[in-house]
Amino acid sequence: MAFYYLCLMEFSMKELSKLLDGKLVGNPDIIVSKPSKIEEGGEGSVSFLHNPRYEAYLYTTSASAVLVPENFEPRYAVKPTLLKVKNVYNAMALTLEKFSEPVLYPTGIADESVIHPSVSIGKKVSVGIYTVIEQNGFIGENTIIYPQVFIGKNVSIGKNCVLFPGVRILADCEIGDYCILHANVVIGCDGFGFVADGGSLLRKIPQLGNVILEDYVEIGANSTIDRATLGATKIKKGVKIDNLVQIGHNAEVGENTVIAAQTGVAGSTHIGSNCQIGGQVGFSGHLKIADGTKIQGQSGISASITTSGQSFMGSPAIPYMSFLKSFSVFKQLPSLILRLQKIEKKLNIP
Amino acid sequence: MAFYYLCLMEFSMKELSKLLDGKLVGNPDIIVSKPSKIEEGGEGSVSFLHNPRYEAYLYTTSASAVLVPENFEPRYAVKPTLLKVKNVYNAMALTLEKFSEPVLYPTGIADESVIHPSVSIGKKVSVGIYTVIEQNGFIGENTIIYPQVFIGKNVSIGKNCVLFPGVRILADCEIGDYCILHANVVIGCDGFGFVADGGSLLRKIPQLGNVILEDYVEIGANSTIDRATLGATKIKKGVKIDNLVQIGHNAEVGENTVIAAQTGVAGSTHIGSNCQIGGQVGFSGHLKIADGTKIQGQSGISASITTSGQSFMGSPAIPYMSFLKSFSVFKQLPSLILRLQKIEKKLNIP
Amino acid sequence: MAFYYLCLMEFSMKELSKLLDGKLVGNPDIIVSKPSKIEEGGEGSVSFLHNPRYEAYLYTTSASAVLVPENFEPRYAVKPTLLKVKNVYNAMALTLEKFSEPVLYPTGIADESVIHPSVSIGKKVSVGIYTVIEQNGFIGENTIIYPQVFIGKNVSIGKNCVLFPGVRILADCEIGDYCILHANVVIGCDGFGFVADGGSLLRKIPQLGNVILEDYVEIGANSTIDRATLGATKIKKGVKIDNLVQIGHNAEVGENTVIAAQTGVAGSTHIGSNCQIGGQVGFSGHLKIADGTKIQGQSGISASITTSGQSFMGSPAIPYMSFLKSFSVFKQLPSLILRLQKIEKKLNIP
Repeated sequence: MAFYYLCLMEFSMKELSKLLDGKLVGNPDIIVSKPSKIEEGGEGSVSFLHNPRYEAYLYTTSASAVLVPENFEPRYAVKPTLLKVKNVYNAMALTLEKFSEPVLYPTGIADESVIHPSVSIGKKVSVGIYTVIEQNGFIGENTIIYPQVFIGKNVSIGKNCVLFPGVRILADCEIGDYCILHANVVIGCDGFGFVADGGSLLRKIPQLGNVILEDYVEIGANSTIDRATLGATKIKKGVKIDNLVQIGHNAEVGENTVIAAQTGVAGSTHIGSNCQIGGQVGFSGHLKIADGTKIQGQSGISASITTSGQSFMGSPAIPYMSFLKSFSVFKQLPSLILRLQKIEKKLNIP
Repeated sequence: MAFYYLCLMEFSMKELSKLLDGKLVGNPDIIVSKPSKIEEGGEGSVSFLHNPRYEAYLYTTSASAVLVPENFEPRYAVKPTLLKVKNVYNAMALTLEKFSEPVLYPTGIADESVIHPSVSIGKKVSVGIYTVIEQNGFIGENTIIYPQVFIGKNVSIGKNCVLFPGVRILADCEIGDYCILHANVVIGCDGFGFVADGGSLLRKIPQLGNVILEDYVEIGANSTIDRATLGATKIKKGVKIDNLVQIGHNAEVGENTVIAAQTGVAGSTHIGSNCQIGGQVGFSGHLKIADGTKIQGQSGISASITTSGQSFMGSPAIPYMSFLKSFSVFKQLPSLILRLQKIEKKLNIP
Repeated sequence: MAFYYLCLMEFSMKELSKLLDGKLVGNPDIIVSKPSKIEEGGEGSVSFLHNPRYEAYLYTTSASAVLVPENFEPRYAVKPTLLKVKNVYNAMALTLEKFSEPVLYPTGIADESVIHPSVSIGKKVSVGIYTVIEQNGFIGENTIIYPQVFIGKNVSIGKNCVLFPGVRILADCEIGDYCILHANVVIGCDGFGFVADGGSLLRKIPQLGNVILEDYVEIGANSTIDRATLGATKIKKGVKIDNLVQIGHNAEVGENTVIAAQTGVAGSTHIGSNCQIGGQVGFSGHLKIADGTKIQGQSGISASITTSGQSFMGSPAIPYMSFLKSFSVFKQLPSLILRLQKIEKKLNIP
């Protein structure tokens, strides 16, 4: 529970070097007290150079220290102390954690909240102002619920979760441990199911299932996850979902799969584990997507993918390299048709 | 109002058979007390086989009974009682309704809600905790308003509606009878209109119209429907809209049209009745779309559609079959250009 | 602050003509007391004809007056008084403002709101029912905060802003003057950043930066703007963003750029000023987009754009005219392959 509010702490670069298992170049005694972007820097700050296109900033930054890749050799003189690390991204994540501190959010139940007496609340739980928790809920220890959250009947939430303002969890859903639900996320809204039964109106198919989020799931702001018609819509352990994503009823997302913003997964589609799904991707319903699949942004997946570890692109999607090859010809189509006309003329084809 | 909370009831398959006008194969006296997914089953449950790809589960399910299509003949021995019905989807919808029961949501006005004294509230209305209803509102009988809903000035809401937590209905909008608005839906936010009048800033066009939802409309979680600049944005009777959909100002959606998740309809576009719109479709503004049009997911509609009952695909969209034919050639483009080069070589075209 | 609630005022067309610097044709003394759509009209209303495709309504409308382009000559007799103006859109914006009136929203702090004592509140600020403002906030004068809004720690909001119901502004973000945030907007949710550090789970990169909205920014309903990992996600002066848009961490949007609904901008992408971005567009991360760029709806931008004032279309996007040319051949691909086969036959190519 160490990741929400910044608190100033101090490290010498020698200490940070030990912590990150890196190699120092420059003054080991320099003190850093905050992280910074390399473009902005600032005395007493430590910065990060992971993307080579930002190298120019290394020679002008006012940061006191910079983390760089272990094989990096500066082409010019540098003022900051350098710390060479195996993986700058990982080291940055660790450094940022060190400069964060245990959440300062008030532990306790706001007077201006309404919790049904039947709800079970663990130790050190925070319940924010104007939050509502209905009958038979269960809230695990250390969980932080921000203001203005709605938790319906029979919902269980694990320990060490964070629910940001405006989260809505409808009746009967289950949230694991260490989950983070960002602002205005909706869990357990009705699946989209209707039948034309010959009357003048569509008939709604009751949605009687629920949603299950396993442990370590993170869901981005304003995303929606539909409850199952029967059974459960399942988001497996370690899944990370970005903002404004839609997951349909009875869908499943496998362990550690990452889904970027504004992607939609239609009903009953099962996505494997360790997949990487770009933004604005659409999946048709009732598909199976193999483990380790990578989908480029804006692709449309309309058929199951059975082989693991493949990449896809396009709408409808085809294998990534095939798409790139076809698309490079697509760009030449106007000249291609001229070439065809030239041939036809030569052959006297009308 | 029978579709939100599951309640266990019991039927013999003989009773269910009568209710669904089906034909029984197996023990008619077996009792079922809940619906189940065929993969999960469970003793005392009734399941549904509508998609042939799930047939294998029929031979292993622990469900006590299964609804199957009327012409279905099992290839192996089956343990559950079978009930053959004309349309499994319709029969499933009816069965699920039978296993639901009248909503248990508390009828009454929460103490922790703020309703302006000028608001007219019908019989048996529920108003949830921390809900706000502003001046001159009208709420029809039997309507259920969950916690944390906002209803602006002069809003009228019909009878037998359900408004889930976090719904926002801005001033002057009108909601019909039997409408369902899912969590965090926004009705009546400003249309997106600005003019460049030569100053250094864009000038906002005031949005003075409203939104009208006719009867039996359902709107999915986190969807947004803009108010008209003048007049009304209209969602006609029986329209079903999925999650995260955007409807622009002065748009209209015709009766019984169904729109899947994450689709966007730009301002002043009028969609006909009985259309089926896939997910992530985009419509340009000021179009007219004929009745009964079908649009495949992720399509982009940039021109009006004047003939009824056609299907479209692509971005920009073209007739469905044309798209499939062109796309099948698109996939062959790399080989096509090689064939062209071969011909040019043979003809000595440089 | 003149744009939210309609109030009936009266003008003679002579007065309106002076105000809009137009030329009257017809009775100058006619009184108008409200705006109307030309299709609907109504006695005593003034309408607008800016789109020639609606001209037919001019001859049947019951509006008392109609604003038309200065070079417009009716082909048939017209009953309403005409007011010829240089730019009907601009004149409409001004007229609608005249028929609006200063906001009637109650000035004052709702009893049912919770504001930390450390918050600084300007003159004539409205704070709605069930709104929460946490420690060290700052709210500028005349700002209107609707019910059920959340404002986190250390958030500063300028003067003359409007925050609609359900807006969530997370800790440390900064909002300029004259900003409008529509219902359920989320500002400052975590950026989407994880590293695979060899463990069985992805590790979250703490998001320690904030979001800065400059003056005159408008953000549509249910849109989300991620906080920066370090530094700030910046939305510059005069930017207008539609509904359901996603802006990633450390992104920037330049002055007066307009972004239509459901578009997504991935992390660290910087969009220039005065750009026009269509709906459902996707931007990859770490790009630079030149000033004055126009992007057609549903396009996918996967590379930086360095020349100002260009138009793009497609996914991935190419120059607009190139796309139209290639797409016109795409539609002919099935016939093109037949032509190729014919040639091959003639040349005896197998």
